[in-house]
Amino acid sequence: MRNPLLAPELRQYLAQGDIQALQQFCTAGHPGVVAEFLAGLNPPEILQVLSHIEPGLRAEIFSKFDVDIQLELADILTRRELASIITDMSPDDRVDLLKKIPEDQREALLPGIAQAEREDIRRLSSYPEGTAGAVMTSDYATLPADLTAAEAIDKLRREAPDKETIYYAYVVDADRKLIAFVSLKDLILARPNRRVADIMSRDVIFARVTDDQETAAGKIQKYDLLALPVINGHDALVGIITHDDALDIFSQEHTEDMEKLMAIAGAHEAGVYLRTSAWAHFKNRSGWIFVLALLGLVSGYIVQSFEGLLMQIALLATFMPMLADTGGNTGSQAATLVVRALAVNEITTKDTLTVLIKEGKVALLLGIMLAVFAFGRVILFAGGTGNSIGHPLFEVGLAIAAALGLQVITATLIGALLPMVAARLKFDPAVVASPALTTIVDITGLLIFFVTAKLMLGI
Amino acid sequence: MRNPLLAPELRQYLAQGDIQALQQFCTAGHPGVVAEFLAGLNPPEILQVLSHIEPGLRAEIFSKFDVDIQLELADILTRRELASIITDMSPDDRVDLLKKIPEDQREALLPGIAQAEREDIRRLSSYPEGTAGAVMTSDYATLPADLTAAEAIDKLRREAPDKETIYYAYVVDADRKLIAFVSLKDLILARPNRRVADIMSRDVIFARVTDDQETAAGKIQKYDLLALPVINGHDALVGIITHDDALDIFSQEHTEDMEKLMAIAGAHEAGVYLRTSAWAHFKNRSGWIFVLALLGLVSGYIVQSFEGLLMQIALLATFMPMLADTGGNTGSQAATLVVRALAVNEITTKDTLTVLIKEGKVALLLGIMLAVFAFGRVILFAGGTGNSIGHPLFEVGLAIAAALGLQVITATLIGALLPMVAARLKFDPAVVASPALTTIVDITGLLIFFVTAKLMLGI
Repeated sequence: MRNPLLAPELRQYLAQGDIQALQQFCTAGHPGVVAEFLAGLNPPEILQVLSHIEPGLRAEIFSKFDVDIQLELADILTRRELASIITDMSPDDRVDLLKKIPEDQREALLPGIAQAEREDIRRLSSYPEGTAGAVMTSDYATLPADLTAAEAIDKLRREAPDKETIYYAYVVDADRKLIAFVSLKDLILARPNRRVADIMSRDVIFARVTDDQETAAGKIQKYDLLALPVINGHDALVGIITHDDALDIFSQEHTEDMEKLMAIAGAHEAGVYLRTSAWAHFKNRSGWIFVLALLGLVSGYIVQSFEGLLMQIALLATFMPMLADTGGNTGSQAATLVVRALAVNEITTKDTLTVLIKEGKVALLLGIMLAVFAFGRVILFAGGTGNSIGHPLFEVGLAIAAALGLQVITATLIGALLPMVAARLKFDPAVVASPALTTIVDITGLLIFFVTAKLMLGI
Repeated sequence: MRNPLLAPELRQYLAQGDIQALQQFCTAGHPGVVAEFLAGLNPPEILQVLSHIEPGLRAEIFSKFDVDIQLELADILTRRELASIITDMSPDDRVDLLKKIPEDQREALLPGIAQAEREDIRRLSSYPEGTAGAVMTSDYATLPADLTAAEAIDKLRREAPDKETIYYAYVVDADRKLIAFVSLKDLILARPNRRVADIMSRDVIFARVTDDQETAAGKIQKYDLLALPVINGHDALVGIITHDDALDIFSQEHTEDMEKLMAIAGAHEAGVYLRTSAWAHFKNRSGWIFVLALLGLVSGYIVQSFEGLLMQIALLATFMPMLADTGGNTGSQAATLVVRALAVNEITTKDTLTVLIKEGKVALLLGIMLAVFAFGRVILFAGGTGNSIGHPLFEVGLAIAAALGLQVITATLIGALLPMVAARLKFDPAVVASPALTTIVDITGLLIFFVTAKLMLGI
């Protein structure tokens, strides 16, 4: 977010060299709010302001800028200044930034960063995007089990400035295996001379580095955690995911799910719609549109091959758009519900039969409703078009009603089945949900429509 | 979630009257995990287990059951037992439960609940669903500004069992106006004899009771908060929304957005797909399907009125399904991106023109791509169908290409515009996004298609 509201005041402070006013501005508010207002300035001005505040806060404000502003600033900072800010940033934020810096610039930067931080960056960058390992931070607090509560609070107090949170601390053994956790609340509530070992909870909820980030965020939600410890293949504690990461993950997955439903490709940050160029939008969106247009030609061929039937009973053409739309709509509804139920772990691929039975019942109700509607429409308002070549209106109405009912039932079942199949094949169920599905049920729907009409009317 | 894994063991403990084992089971794990395993038993068994654990934990485990289990248990608990559990539940959880209990049962319950809790319930229930007031809890910690850090920690320690969180405490004046906040971390880091007034931060980020719950959750995300204070019309502090509420709100909004995109009505909890009856699903889904089917008939009428044109150039019918699908797809893509950008506050209704220009450029690129594709398809593979009554294939191809290009451009612009208009009229942008949009651009698309063909081919 860029908020230009205070830009004139900030520029005036800069022009007057009123460093105290700038410092006061930067320390008074939440770093996120400060970053929002600073973003109203241009990059050289931002750097000037940042140069007057102490390194810890500077890195914190820097982390709160949108990534494009961070990259603009990175471009005009000296290598040494940038390395210093990166060293002061929290481990997960700095890895996110480094991943976006061009490789040659990144390589040039690393020598300026202290050995320990460099190792940490290398380790955190090694996990694939979308895993718990890639979103965790390594600034967590640990406690030896034999400290007293008072000693433990003392230790957390000393380490607080370097830790992402001191509200949860973890107990590990000599191999850094995760054994237990203890909250600051537990420590404060305990008598000061009680041992951590007597207060800590051994039943720790954790994630593995290879877990999906959404699974990890789901645990934070389900168990109302402030932080979730992350362990590696040797069960050693290597990081934590905090409650605010979980919110970011949920928000990102929300955007991705909606875009997948609409067949929009391309990995990206939340909140970059306006800053993405029209050309980049085109590249993200055109692929599927083209594939679906190709598939749409299949529908065209079906129409073409039943041309004779259409010419004989023109009323059929009138119902073609409604038939296609309705199939797409009922199928998409079923698919959306199934995709979401899979995402929140309410159902698994084992429930395929249960889901199909449930959707079958709903589809039957929807099918009957629409069949009655279509039949009524034909009988009441068809005028003279139906029986143009000797077919009683009643028969044509029955055929259209039956075709529509069948289309709704198959479309709904296909809509429910496709995400389940995708999930079983380890694809993301959301990608098969909407436009792809609409195009598929268009094809099946037209086939059902024409074949039903042909058979029932004996043409 | 119901996990039947440990049901046999739990039943054995019950049969043997091994109360100690049951107590140990209930205290060892996270209440959420305990609730998951207990949910594998039937309601009378669950009650038996719960009767052996102390009231505080019992209420906590009870809160973690899915709402349908809570209601089943509420049905078989005596009024006095249920009132006691409700009294012990956290304010926001108990209001959620009471809202779902039938009114007569609720009226009968209230006298059994202590005066203070009853008032609290009445107050929290008074805010409309979906507002910050309706999701907040009233169990927050406050501190007088003149306490020392040591005294403040002491006060939080004493009050901890009754508070949702002690990690954030708020400072209010005599009228309960929110003045400042202080974190337990700040208190622990401060010298013990420093005053709260010197440590606290006066720049508090807050929500109003009438704010949308998503706006409030968005602040928690943006500023990485553990809790967000909520104030009423007189600026008095009346509650807090915690980080775990924010995750629940995000998850619920995610489900709702996806369902709105697919025109599924009905307010409901996350994770109840399987437990919702087929009939209830039908009621949630049939309304829009019916309305859209009605609108689909409009497309039908358009086809019907251009019957003559279709009969003359049968190739047009072949492109009808692709034209309708492609318009729906490109329009839905634009709508989805705009809906999401609105939801994450990246754009507001003031950006309508900017968005339309951006989408116009994307649409132009997509339109050109598809027009070229359609023209190629006509020229290369049309066989003899195109020029059946004297129209050169080249002209027919140009007409189809132009119509498809125009359809893509208008559909994309309509897709971008509709959510902006809905947002300006204070409707939820998501409802106009998918099936409604698809049906609308079907109608505009067919009109464009036939009119373009008619004009360009001079029929």
